[in-house]
Amino acid sequence: MRQRPMDERLLSEIGEPGVIDRARRAAGRRRAPLILGIGDDAALISPPPGKMLSLTCDMMIEGVHFRRDWSEAGQVGSKAAAVNLSDIAAMGGTPAVALVSLAAPADLAVGWIDEFFAGLTTELLAFGCQLAGGDTVGSPGPIVVDVTVAGFQETAARRQGARPGDVLVLTGPVGGAAAGLALLEAGERWPGSDARVHGLLAAQLMPHPRVAESQVLVSYAHAMTDLSDGLSTSLELLTRPKGLGARIDQEQIPMHPGLGVAAERLQRDPEDWMREGGEEYELLAAVAPRRVPALWRALQRQGYPIYPIGEVTSEPGLHWRRQGKEIRVERGAFDHFDLGRQLEHPPRS
Amino acid sequence: MRQRPMDERLLSEIGEPGVIDRARRAAGRRRAPLILGIGDDAALISPPPGKMLSLTCDMMIEGVHFRRDWSEAGQVGSKAAAVNLSDIAAMGGTPAVALVSLAAPADLAVGWIDEFFAGLTTELLAFGCQLAGGDTVGSPGPIVVDVTVAGFQETAARRQGARPGDVLVLTGPVGGAAAGLALLEAGERWPGSDARVHGLLAAQLMPHPRVAESQVLVSYAHAMTDLSDGLSTSLELLTRPKGLGARIDQEQIPMHPGLGVAAERLQRDPEDWMREGGEEYELLAAVAPRRVPALWRALQRQGYPIYPIGEVTSEPGLHWRRQGKEIRVERGAFDHFDLGRQLEHPPRS
Repeated sequence: MRQRPMDERLLSEIGEPGVIDRARRAAGRRRAPLILGIGDDAALISPPPGKMLSLTCDMMIEGVHFRRDWSEAGQVGSKAAAVNLSDIAAMGGTPAVALVSLAAPADLAVGWIDEFFAGLTTELLAFGCQLAGGDTVGSPGPIVVDVTVAGFQETAARRQGARPGDVLVLTGPVGGAAAGLALLEAGERWPGSDARVHGLLAAQLMPHPRVAESQVLVSYAHAMTDLSDGLSTSLELLTRPKGLGARIDQEQIPMHPGLGVAAERLQRDPEDWMREGGEEYELLAAVAPRRVPALWRALQRQGYPIYPIGEVTSEPGLHWRRQGKEIRVERGAFDHFDLGRQLEHPPRS
Repeated sequence: MRQRPMDERLLSEIGEPGVIDRARRAAGRRRAPLILGIGDDAALISPPPGKMLSLTCDMMIEGVHFRRDWSEAGQVGSKAAAVNLSDIAAMGGTPAVALVSLAAPADLAVGWIDEFFAGLTTELLAFGCQLAGGDTVGSPGPIVVDVTVAGFQETAARRQGARPGDVLVLTGPVGGAAAGLALLEAGERWPGSDARVHGLLAAQLMPHPRVAESQVLVSYAHAMTDLSDGLSTSLELLTRPKGLGARIDQEQIPMHPGLGVAAERLQRDPEDWMREGGEEYELLAAVAPRRVPALWRALQRQGYPIYPIGEVTSEPGLHWRRQGKEIRVERGAFDHFDLGRQLEHPPRS
């Protein structure tokens, strides 16, 4: 990502105007629907006629969501973009513009900021989203990044709307981000000493938001969400508010490549990572059974897989099955405040 | 702001779902243009046809922008809203919806969060703006608040567009926020022991965004901005990029009530606070001379004053005059990164 020698000056030497200049350079040339980007009191956007606006924000704080000795600056920027793009994708929206608020200590190297902005804008632009503005402030301690993404869309897939009998589908394999985190905690570092676990570290450090897939899914899904709080929690979000439940076939859940290697090395149960691991950015959708073949074909035409993992039930609760028999599964939900610091307290396993 | 006994539990006891419930309660009943508020992957908004969208964010970090022993929680929430509403006002926009990201330590009292959300939503709703979503995360240290506000508007007033000969107008008196900060640093506490300086503390702790005034000004201004970085910096933002300058009559700048009292008590020059003090949320606009009477009348009909303080010049640079004679003024701009921590390093004076 680095294109010239790393700038070794400190933020205190270039000041807030220097940071804004760097953000402006990284943002690149303005195009529609952005009318006015970085450098005024607010950004101005021209919404496409007749579309809804979707709006989301996600904050990442050093020591909780990332560590500078685990992530390159570009990976922090890229992930800050991805987690927000994923929220827009989960509604079925098309990302359009983003804002970024950055709190950074005065003794941070300018090169870190350069790579952070490069990672952020590269990830945003890969999904058609422009950096339109933001705020930079001094921090007495941790780096804090908060990204807002605005998207536009004609139809929306909400979390609620699933019906009994709907097929639950996933866009990709799960468990990678939690396993990657466990490997980092055990001393593994990106890009990893073993090619088999490279993808797990990547899942944790630079997740891929399913924006393209969501544009197809939104026409088929009764309900949709991403897996940012883990598969079990997402299944509950889609069913519990309406008194529904889900029956899941454990063998149908796609396992992230390398999960078995990591589980053996760390003596953990890979299925716990798959069910409870957060920071996953696959999409989970509830689709009427008769529409699954057409959905499968529409996604397949673009080269994307889809994994049916179970169905929505009128009976409440999550029921997990293996070889047709119900299995007992313990919940181990992770809560930021409950545990205080995410990186020190990964999902229970 | 408190309506029931303060909740003395800790954040760790109610968890992230508890915080989200509280935000939802504080947000109140959803109305147009908000289609879907707190509780999904993203908020959904129906933009009014034919209008532009304005988008801004501002981050406040404990120890830099506020201190818990200086500000009540409600004041932190109210200010986090106000500084963003002011950015939308500076573009001439009408605030519509807001998002809030909040990082908080696990041992923070739930009552603090309740009052924070009450202050935030009360301030937003006072200007027709709804809380539509956000993010809550654990913090290893400081409380961090980042608010995004989206507005809609037909016309916009940018920072650039001022022309030589334009009259520079202010919506209200300046210097109050910087003087309030100096008083807090000298040990004064809200609401203050002396009624004469109460307004200065208020200017620092709960600024008032000029949203209503901006709706009038946007039809008259060639250029507009707020004073969040101080009067001198705002004058430069409006003139320097086009090689222009400004001539300002020091006696025409309205002085915040109580400024003389504070200056005498702290042995400071009140004019430094007026010229250089940041965190002011009055609007500064450049208006064609022939349109000033009509602007004056339009504002006066709604009970708002307007203060002409000088004019835009084709000669670059800021020129300050007193009794018709140019005076020498030293710049003392404040930069977050240059000085590291705002509250410990107020604008030089």
